[in-house]
Amino acid sequence: MILNANEVIGFVAALLTTIAFLPQVYKTWKTKDVSSLSLPMLSMFFIGVILWLIYGTLKQSPAIIFANGTTVISTLLLLYFKLKYQK
Amino acid sequence: MILNANEVIGFVAALLTTIAFLPQVYKTWKTKDVSSLSLPMLSMFFIGVILWLIYGTLKQSPAIIFANGTTVISTLLLLYFKLKYQK
Repeated sequence: MILNANEVIGFVAALLTTIAFLPQVYKTWKTKDVSSLSLPMLSMFFIGVILWLIYGTLKQSPAIIFANGTTVISTLLLLYFKLKYQK
Repeated sequence: MILNANEVIGFVAALLTTIAFLPQVYKTWKTKDVSSLSLPMLSMFFIGVILWLIYGTLKQSPAIIFANGTTVISTLLLLYFKLKYQK
């Protein structure tokens, strides 16, 4: 795994789009309010993120693997909250 | 731009994580309900997606450029709705 300048930008990007889900997971967990979260969005996003993981592995891109490996967990949690708390 | 098997997987991934935002944008626009959307999430995600665009350009990855070019618009719309409709 070579970490050149490009990969540093990729990692910062990955870090931001990954960390971004944490306040959402926390907010949803805390408030149990899922009214404005879209179920089709979460479902498609979840499947997409799994495909990104495969793509990142094929492309040997550490940033893509790291980002999507973490996001898959956040998205799974949001999907669970949405199904559990929606009226 | 060469479209090999890897890039096809990347494009399907990109398509899903990009299209995923459309039902969210539609739902938010229709209901004006932004209560359960996290502002820190949207802000961090927006900056992250811009960095992904730069990374995709440097890596010459059509899938990353396509995905994030579209997502940057969806995220900007959601950010606008959040700021406009939040109480």
